[in-house]
Amino acid sequence: MSKKNVFYAQSGGVTAVINASACGLIETARQYKNKMGKVYAGCNGIIGALTEDLIDTSKESSKAIARLRYTPGGAFGSCRYKLKNLEDNRAEYERLLEVFKAHDIGYFFYNGGGDSQDTAYKIYLLSQKISYPLTCIGIPKTVDNDLPITDNCPGFGSVAKYVAISILEAGLDVASMCATSTKVFIMEVMGRHTGWIAAASGLAMQKKGDAPHIILFPEIIFNEALFLKQVDKTVKKWGYCVIVLAEGIRDSTQKFLAEAGTTDSFGHKQLGGAAPVIAQLIKTKLGYKYHWALPDYLQRSARHIAADVDVKQAYALGQAAVEFAIKGKNAVMPTIIRTTSKRYKWAIGETTLASVANKEKKLPRSYITNDGFHITQRCRDYLLPLIQGEDYPPYQKGLPNYIHLKKVKVKKKLEDFVV
Amino acid sequence: MSKKNVFYAQSGGVTAVINASACGLIETARQYKNKMGKVYAGCNGIIGALTEDLIDTSKESSKAIARLRYTPGGAFGSCRYKLKNLEDNRAEYERLLEVFKAHDIGYFFYNGGGDSQDTAYKIYLLSQKISYPLTCIGIPKTVDNDLPITDNCPGFGSVAKYVAISILEAGLDVASMCATSTKVFIMEVMGRHTGWIAAASGLAMQKKGDAPHIILFPEIIFNEALFLKQVDKTVKKWGYCVIVLAEGIRDSTQKFLAEAGTTDSFGHKQLGGAAPVIAQLIKTKLGYKYHWALPDYLQRSARHIAADVDVKQAYALGQAAVEFAIKGKNAVMPTIIRTTSKRYKWAIGETTLASVANKEKKLPRSYITNDGFHITQRCRDYLLPLIQGEDYPPYQKGLPNYIHLKKVKVKKKLEDFVV
Repeated sequence: MSKKNVFYAQSGGVTAVINASACGLIETARQYKNKMGKVYAGCNGIIGALTEDLIDTSKESSKAIARLRYTPGGAFGSCRYKLKNLEDNRAEYERLLEVFKAHDIGYFFYNGGGDSQDTAYKIYLLSQKISYPLTCIGIPKTVDNDLPITDNCPGFGSVAKYVAISILEAGLDVASMCATSTKVFIMEVMGRHTGWIAAASGLAMQKKGDAPHIILFPEIIFNEALFLKQVDKTVKKWGYCVIVLAEGIRDSTQKFLAEAGTTDSFGHKQLGGAAPVIAQLIKTKLGYKYHWALPDYLQRSARHIAADVDVKQAYALGQAAVEFAIKGKNAVMPTIIRTTSKRYKWAIGETTLASVANKEKKLPRSYITNDGFHITQRCRDYLLPLIQGEDYPPYQKGLPNYIHLKKVKVKKKLEDFVV
Repeated sequence: MSKKNVFYAQSGGVTAVINASACGLIETARQYKNKMGKVYAGCNGIIGALTEDLIDTSKESSKAIARLRYTPGGAFGSCRYKLKNLEDNRAEYERLLEVFKAHDIGYFFYNGGGDSQDTAYKIYLLSQKISYPLTCIGIPKTVDNDLPITDNCPGFGSVAKYVAISILEAGLDVASMCATSTKVFIMEVMGRHTGWIAAASGLAMQKKGDAPHIILFPEIIFNEALFLKQVDKTVKKWGYCVIVLAEGIRDSTQKFLAEAGTTDSFGHKQLGGAAPVIAQLIKTKLGYKYHWALPDYLQRSARHIAADVDVKQAYALGQAAVEFAIKGKNAVMPTIIRTTSKRYKWAIGETTLASVANKEKKLPRSYITNDGFHITQRCRDYLLPLIQGEDYPPYQKGLPNYIHLKKVKVKKKLEDFVV
């Protein structure tokens, strides 16, 4: 086997631990110096490959690479860019392979969600077709936890821990003020199609009456009357009501509550956010004083409180991707397997890119209570191991000491290409 | 001196460290068992005193009290309830003293902001007038950092650390995605009248081009044209723009941008939040893709990332309050003094309740850059010491192990009183 270079790209929404996967991959590739060449990272994801905008990670010190393990965001830049079908846009795929060829790239590692695994698979298919020797390995990543087959996705555990802690803390705040102030607190979390993140907030409820009292999932059609009844009952019983909702909750017409087209009780258009819609509903129909929070990107970048198990898994998946490649595997993705449930243990598994591409794992109905407003014990048993441990970043002058890489670019060899 | 009991109450919006003050106060009072009786805490703040709803803290174990040090929210309940003027509502003040008398209370400790210090001072005045021997000591607390005389207020350092870390992390997230996704990210923080919390986010900017790029303060009139120019310039230069704004920013007519009366470009009323108003403005006038976050209560309850110095000061102020009382001081409030600036050191100072009551410390103009969009070095020098150190709470099963007290009530001795 000739010593081919490596291409690595980050894709889609970044997470608190995607750089831990990059760290695992680069550190492991450096251990196989006899078999692998340089690791080039795509500047802004796959766009970097198309535009021949490559970052030479060999210019980064071991210390710098090690610091990726605890730095959130995408250190090389990510992008929301989905390649079209091979038939519709063969030129793009051919350009990719042309860039790979020009830089003697024999390994393609793509770190992303379902879409990205699909892209990796398509690139694999084309490389096979045109007999360009390319090892294509996917590395799972998504805060949404919606990839199939793998027990969970790196990035999710940390956002799960963040939302559970946030609602535990805000819940204590509201509980102490509810006698004379806010009675209803609403937190909107990510999850356009799936309720995994919203579900994780349920872990904060450790005994009856604890926040969150109500969770709204995209998997459950929003029923206004039932919901308002539950809110009112909760305030009357516990003095306050803490609600967590996924951004993707929909009404019976399948319309997102957060949708631009949604109007409040005054007939006014909303600017986005399901939380203010729900807040206004409660104010109008029940008259309770409310507050709402929308942590948005804060939740998925909160490396300061990342789950230790999540960081370890993210790293291990980056490492496994390289080891798979070294073993000659192709068109596969390492996964997380839950080997024992009672006392949580995990291992690295393997699946084909074809089987994860473009598939979405929803929250099972058995993870949601019968009334649709909370999580079941089964859900807790699944989620709890994923938020274990605190992997604190080092601090300097009161702030996490995150790394900014040098990002030395690889000299271009080809003509420009317009994306 | 006869051994009088103690009354302690938490007031106004709670913080990540108000319970650390309670911890300092109760632990210290227990050390003076020969001079002080039991510590009764007001259930839901001063309302607990009015309604004779008292919590007997002597029923809590030393271990439970020690855990208050790292538990956010108000462990005994707080309230937004401001006593009227003595002349307008003498009955309430008399009732307070009646409750104190019935329970042999000789010490009144009030843990809150400017309003609360005012209340404590009024109660002191009345007790003097009617010759009821009562020691009235204030303990500063407010995330807003707007109390005069004291160098800073406990609660502020932790929220400052939280917003600086959050914007550092979210900034890395946006930076990695801006090539193809969100160009403008907006975070709205607390601060109805003062920009201290917004200013603290500026600490995340460690070198040119770092987030946050623009900070909007309530102290600076919002100028739409200048602001939009700055946003556009920033996006063109750095590829993205991260904005932090205080909830209390106002336009030239002194109207809050977040005000219910505010209308968006479609003439629609807003549901609250200045961030969506600013986001919509940017979308309409500049066309940039935006995201916005509103951490709301998450910021002031984020004990998981409290500043060590803040926790220590909160504890020390509770401790000092008791020591002041033991020394026979009255109508005073312990303060934080910055003894050296170069290598930050602090000590406990003292001021009169009269001098802090109802006063508000705004961000000095010299702390804001000439263009009004960022903080000066002078501001950084002031703020940076206040976010130092990480005082992590202990964790159990992936979540902070916060305490729920038993809250055993003191037997009532008086007739009911309607608040």
